Amino acid sequence: MDNILKRTHMCGTLNANNIGEKVVLNGWIQKRRNLGGLIFCDLRDKTGIIQIVFNDNIPKEVFDKADSLRSEYVVGIAGVVAERESKNKDLATGDIEVFAEDLVIYSEAETPPIYIKDDDEVSDNLRLKYRYLDLRKGKMQRNLSFRHKISKVTREFFDSEGFTEVETPMLIKPTPEGARDYLVPSRVNPGQFYALPQSPQMFKQLLMVSGTDRYYQLAKCFRDEDLRADRQPEFTQIDLEMSFVDVDDVIEIQEKYLKKLFREVMNVEITTPLPRYPYAEAMERFGSDKPDTRFGFELKSLNDVVKNSDFQVFDNALAAGGDVRGINIDGGAEKFSRKDIDKLQEAIKHFGAKGLVWIKIGEAETTSSVSKFFTPEKMKEITDVFNGKPGDLIFIVADKAKIVFDSLGFLRRDIAGKLGMLDDSQYNLLWVVDFPLFEYDDEAGTYSPMHHPFTSPRLEDVHMLDSDPGKVRAKAYDIVLNGVELGGGSIRIHDRNLQRKMFEVLKMSDEVVNSKFGFLLEAFKYGTPPHGGLAYGLDRLVMLLSWEHSIREVIAFPKNQSAVCMVSEAPSVASEEQLEELGIQIKKSITDQ
Amino acid sequence: MDNILKRTHMCGTLNANNIGEKVVLNGWIQKRRNLGGLIFCDLRDKTGIIQIVFNDNIPKEVFDKADSLRSEYVVGIAGVVAERESKNKDLATGDIEVFAEDLVIYSEAETPPIYIKDDDEVSDNLRLKYRYLDLRKGKMQRNLSFRHKISKVTREFFDSEGFTEVETPMLIKPTPEGARDYLVPSRVNPGQFYALPQSPQMFKQLLMVSGTDRYYQLAKCFRDEDLRADRQPEFTQIDLEMSFVDVDDVIEIQEKYLKKLFREVMNVEITTPLPRYPYAEAMERFGSDKPDTRFGFELKSLNDVVKNSDFQVFDNALAAGGDVRGINIDGGAEKFSRKDIDKLQEAIKHFGAKGLVWIKIGEAETTSSVSKFFTPEKMKEITDVFNGKPGDLIFIVADKAKIVFDSLGFLRRDIAGKLGMLDDSQYNLLWVVDFPLFEYDDEAGTYSPMHHPFTSPRLEDVHMLDSDPGKVRAKAYDIVLNGVELGGGSIRIHDRNLQRKMFEVLKMSDEVVNSKFGFLLEAFKYGTPPHGGLAYGLDRLVMLLSWEHSIREVIAFPKNQSAVCMVSEAPSVASEEQLEELGIQIKKSITDQ
Repeated sequence: MDNILKRTHMCGTLNANNIGEKVVLNGWIQKRRNLGGLIFCDLRDKTGIIQIVFNDNIPKEVFDKADSLRSEYVVGIAGVVAERESKNKDLATGDIEVFAEDLVIYSEAETPPIYIKDDDEVSDNLRLKYRYLDLRKGKMQRNLSFRHKISKVTREFFDSEGFTEVETPMLIKPTPEGARDYLVPSRVNPGQFYALPQSPQMFKQLLMVSGTDRYYQLAKCFRDEDLRADRQPEFTQIDLEMSFVDVDDVIEIQEKYLKKLFREVMNVEITTPLPRYPYAEAMERFGSDKPDTRFGFELKSLNDVVKNSDFQVFDNALAAGGDVRGINIDGGAEKFSRKDIDKLQEAIKHFGAKGLVWIKIGEAETTSSVSKFFTPEKMKEITDVFNGKPGDLIFIVADKAKIVFDSLGFLRRDIAGKLGMLDDSQYNLLWVVDFPLFEYDDEAGTYSPMHHPFTSPRLEDVHMLDSDPGKVRAKAYDIVLNGVELGGGSIRIHDRNLQRKMFEVLKMSDEVVNSKFGFLLEAFKYGTPPHGGLAYGLDRLVMLLSWEHSIREVIAFPKNQSAVCMVSEAPSVASEEQLEELGIQIKKSITDQ
Repeated sequence: MDNILKRTHMCGTLNANNIGEKVVLNGWIQKRRNLGGLIFCDLRDKTGIIQIVFNDNIPKEVFDKADSLRSEYVVGIAGVVAERESKNKDLATGDIEVFAEDLVIYSEAETPPIYIKDDDEVSDNLRLKYRYLDLRKGKMQRNLSFRHKISKVTREFFDSEGFTEVETPMLIKPTPEGARDYLVPSRVNPGQFYALPQSPQMFKQLLMVSGTDRYYQLAKCFRDEDLRADRQPEFTQIDLEMSFVDVDDVIEIQEKYLKKLFREVMNVEITTPLPRYPYAEAMERFGSDKPDTRFGFELKSLNDVVKNSDFQVFDNALAAGGDVRGINIDGGAEKFSRKDIDKLQEAIKHFGAKGLVWIKIGEAETTSSVSKFFTPEKMKEITDVFNGKPGDLIFIVADKAKIVFDSLGFLRRDIAGKLGMLDDSQYNLLWVVDFPLFEYDDEAGTYSPMHHPFTSPRLEDVHMLDSDPGKVRAKAYDIVLNGVELGGGSIRIHDRNLQRKMFEVLKMSDEVVNSKFGFLLEAFKYGTPPHGGLAYGLDRLVMLLSWEHSIREVIAFPKNQSAVCMVSEAPSVASEEQLEELGIQIKKSITDQ
């Protein structure tokens, strides 16, 4: 067992240039075949697979040992690289093979419960239970390396731009971010709890107050929320903050970062400056604050054209201050049956839409779900808004603005997907800027911050804070890739008077302000630089750039919704002594169940 | 407020080469003096301080604004660099000053509760309460940057050596490391708890099983232990693991890392290979498994010389299987009064020592606390063991081996410190290897693993696992700098039979083994490479290399023992709703207090 063969190469790095070389490889047996006097093995390490040949030129005990090999045995092999007679085009190393001279078996293996191959169609639960086997797959190792490379390039960039990497604490006071905190009982203060950070927001702002000037961190963050394909309760954020900057400064340096990232990681050149869409324009044109601009189907307003029509649905929407908008699926008339359209209509109920109007423009005549309400002339007027031509299919939604935008934003992307128009090799990066500072809650009749209460308003809008807060735009920005938000941030308020004004508009009492944010306000008393920053979701970034559709593919040890889960990750019952020290007890109602 | 002057330079980077240049600086006012028609300000950013001059060549409103400046105001200044008439040798930028032409005040400041200067002698509590002000100090910003640089060089090295950075989970099953876990109540499984990792040990071994081959991570780890100057409950570990390696392979690559680290971070060339001390030798010569070799005072055994003496204390120690050992403080006779020696004797009581024998060798006569028990000839025989010469001071301890080693190990370093022999510019790096695999518990009469039960024994010692487990040496290694452990690790057991044998020796039942380590053993069934690794304490590494004496100086937001602590870090009381969801309640006995 002590005898470890000193590796000279990784399996996947060998090629025809190595022919004739003596090599030592370490790895796992992918498979073994004994063809009489010849034994063929596929040897695997994280870089790839190579064929090993044992023939009768080697000592019998080595040959016999080779004959005992089974899948997933771990071995060291010394041998000579040779050209392969029957080349294997499916294998990167398929031009060569290694004639073994020595063999050490480091470890035997039982038959593994899942196959070690990318296309093993095993259940998610089994993959996660045997994650250490699942990670042996070539694709999974490539994903781990890819993630590493993104982190590496990210750090290199921010290092070179004068950002200081600072580690912020993990056991903190519950944060005001809004999602559910993970709590950690304090032993020193029994009955009290730390929280795990939802983000380092407070700390990075304090670092700016402390003169650290430029900060970044690949920060672990926690939100106790249910799992989704693109969300884990613990996640990693590329987090940064800069002093003495305004929106343009932050965007400029991020574009430099993204340019480097795409070049070095993807071998893709992106053109900067990236397009910037004011929030209002993104909504008007794409029905989304994360527009996917890889295809058209832009929204058009029909408010002017259809007002005072006899169609009740449109009239009511407009009368209630709502909207009538639509999209034109060019050449879509033939591609969507009545049934397909019903399904789309069903789907947008999720956003609150009560119906979906459709118009198919034919060569001879135009058919529509609302033909009877409009004259052919009016119908022409409507389709002209979309530059409609024969073969086109127009969808219209009439409702409150939010419902109209959400429904049409969903439809345009969903339909583009169905029509195969989402090109994975195209990277449409863009900024959405000028978000509203506040969201209005219809029911409560109050405003709440769209991001967080430290986001700075645009200076030219400050005068509307009292008179028309809904119109005030924020110095906030999101970076969007192909319809998915990669990250976002804002310039923060560093002026105490403006901050006070914000809390006033939010109708937050001094008591609430002090208990939630008193610490930061106190810090701001002693000289605060203008500052702002950004955070990218690293997990999502890796997922998008690797074309994976689940975050689980890019995290080594993901969490699992179901009970089946790696034992090393499952929660378990605490001992009486532990609970005693922490000053807590399990509620009877639960333990008794 | 919108108007941010675009920085051209950092304050501390300006020098005589910039004379005549127009520059824009952003920063904090360190101080301001108005000398009639001239206003002098010191402007500070994280790189340093520079003098700014406002004179009457500038518009009156700018001059008046400058006159309103107070300490810690945050400003932007545009001006021209000029040679300074009265140069300030205490300031890096003391040869120059900047004649201001424009001034923007970004933020006013109240008088800060602590001074922003390195030698502000304020209490630790106040420093931690106003940490964002404390971090404005030049020294603290340099420490943050220094820490960043160490992380950077570390990552660059392991990146270049084919290690994959993998993030391991933070919410895991309680680990078998032995220290107290921080628990995190699970909402999905009320009444159950996650633990925060004490180290990623299990996960890095699983990564080796998964074929990741070489792994590293700057990992956040947690131990719910009380604070000490060199320990925080949350800390960062440079954690790594390699497959297909034995002790020499791990040490070789670590020496390459340390060489690069010391060169790039300290500008110090270290000579490799580093010395390796077997544990037994380290104890015999230095009384410590973390020997500081910057000075002598090596331990010598008197067991042979004093056996069968008439001195009861020595006799008893030897009869009980103990030891009589001592150290010689060359030329120390004159430097330690009777009172000093009493203090040393008091200090080693902490290690269980009952007494401290001393011998002072004079020109004419030798005096000692035990003169009356030994003939001059015997005394000469004793001092000869130490090559004693006139002026020397010898200390002897007789007791159980552990007490003798601990006491003398402490004395030699403590005395070297008192004599000013701990040279901070010398970096004595060394390995301690061949640790015992087990520790024997006298009282319980059982063996326990010295590191953890996955540490591999040395192969040539395996035959003693049954017959003489105390003699079995481990494939474990610690890296030591100037008497402080920087890190440590081991080659792990990857053979299931050997692992089973280990548990047998440790008298662990199958039930305990399965509940604690069953998961890893299961993983080992499916093909496990030989593997081993190491972890360095990053916080301690930064502390040692920056010559700081407390870990708080190298962590941005440290924890504090006392109640005074940054509000953003203090635990607090959870809401009824939160407790309800988590299925726990606060114990009445505590809340009622």
